[in-house]
Amino acid sequence: MTLGLGTGSTAAHALDRLGDLLRAGALPGVAGVPTSLKTEAHASAVGIPLLPLDAASGARIALSIDGADEVDPDLNLVKGRGGSLLREKMIEGAGDRFVVIVDESKLVPRLGCTGAIPVEVIPFGAPHTLGLIRNLFDGLPGFHARLRTVPAAKGEDLEQPFVTDNGNYIVEMFFEDGIRGDLRDISDRLLRITGVVEHGMFLGMATTVIVANKDGTVAVMGRRK
Amino acid sequence: MTLGLGTGSTAAHALDRLGDLLRAGALPGVAGVPTSLKTEAHASAVGIPLLPLDAASGARIALSIDGADEVDPDLNLVKGRGGSLLREKMIEGAGDRFVVIVDESKLVPRLGCTGAIPVEVIPFGAPHTLGLIRNLFDGLPGFHARLRTVPAAKGEDLEQPFVTDNGNYIVEMFFEDGIRGDLRDISDRLLRITGVVEHGMFLGMATTVIVANKDGTVAVMGRRK
Repeated sequence: MTLGLGTGSTAAHALDRLGDLLRAGALPGVAGVPTSLKTEAHASAVGIPLLPLDAASGARIALSIDGADEVDPDLNLVKGRGGSLLREKMIEGAGDRFVVIVDESKLVPRLGCTGAIPVEVIPFGAPHTLGLIRNLFDGLPGFHARLRTVPAAKGEDLEQPFVTDNGNYIVEMFFEDGIRGDLRDISDRLLRITGVVEHGMFLGMATTVIVANKDGTVAVMGRRK
Repeated sequence: MTLGLGTGSTAAHALDRLGDLLRAGALPGVAGVPTSLKTEAHASAVGIPLLPLDAASGARIALSIDGADEVDPDLNLVKGRGGSLLREKMIEGAGDRFVVIVDESKLVPRLGCTGAIPVEVIPFGAPHTLGLIRNLFDGLPGFHARLRTVPAAKGEDLEQPFVTDNGNYIVEMFFEDGIRGDLRDISDRLLRITGVVEHGMFLGMATTVIVANKDGTVAVMGRRK
């Protein structure tokens, strides 16, 4: 069985547990497809056999497991605040099932309520692409967008753009009180911008969302893919 | 005045002529935004002052000039068989006017009649992305798609993927007798594939097409942007 392996603090727990079960001999024949370089390193360290996406597409990814930044009532997600949205979307969209694990703080009435919706863009012309993304939401109260940066390295004056595993940049979109409207239409409008590679709205992809509540109970929500 | 500078054998003639006019003092205040590293080098060599896309977006690109691989009756184009489709599309889409120069052999009844329609894809998972592009046209007679390669370097056994100026790969789509259907819908379906960055169909972008005929005459076709 081939598993898609998510990226982030929640997915890291799943990796540790998979490693435990593999070492105990409880998961014969299981291999993983990592969604980031970080996950690749972590999975290797805990002894999970790894496959690239290409080999896996022949073998078929049965199930992916990952966290999410936000989950809306239709099980649409915001992902990628950690910066790995593109590989996550490729791998988690390739499998038969996609299981998302979150705590209840991630449940939102609308995507974009609690922070940025990231958009991966080509470095060439990134400020121009940022301008086109701003134009999409021109005049929307409370909307703003910026290029994600990392602090200046020692001896350098300026903040540097955050660079993804694929060598691209990230534009962060912020909405006051979340993004409203037809999300699939908004997705298409973003993807039509020439410098945009992908965005962090995962629409209709999650098949199961497992929610850990503060009181220690666990709720499971599901939908057909 | 800021000009978008195309890439390819036709655009190269325009660069030479611009250089001549600049040296003659006939084009004061003209600067160019190059659509490829190759065009950047050529334009520098003939003395055209250059701007990056970002500075130009403030200054506004008045006009872009480029060749095309194919032009259909609605002035939709196939571009990028030379491999520079992404930067061309960003720059030529940013300007007020886009002038295309072709000879009459480039006029086609449907896009994809005379060769490949290129699609720029992320290197990560490229064979998987190729599979998803094939699925889009599954069962269409005569359709095939492949990863564009370059011949093996000396001492290497295998062909290598062609790499774009942005570090991406190119999938070539071939249609028997051209692509049929709603091109904007097909464009959206391609762009929705997670590994796809852009494609070489330039829809509704050309404002003027100048056609050189074999008999020495020139025809000009135009449309509003």
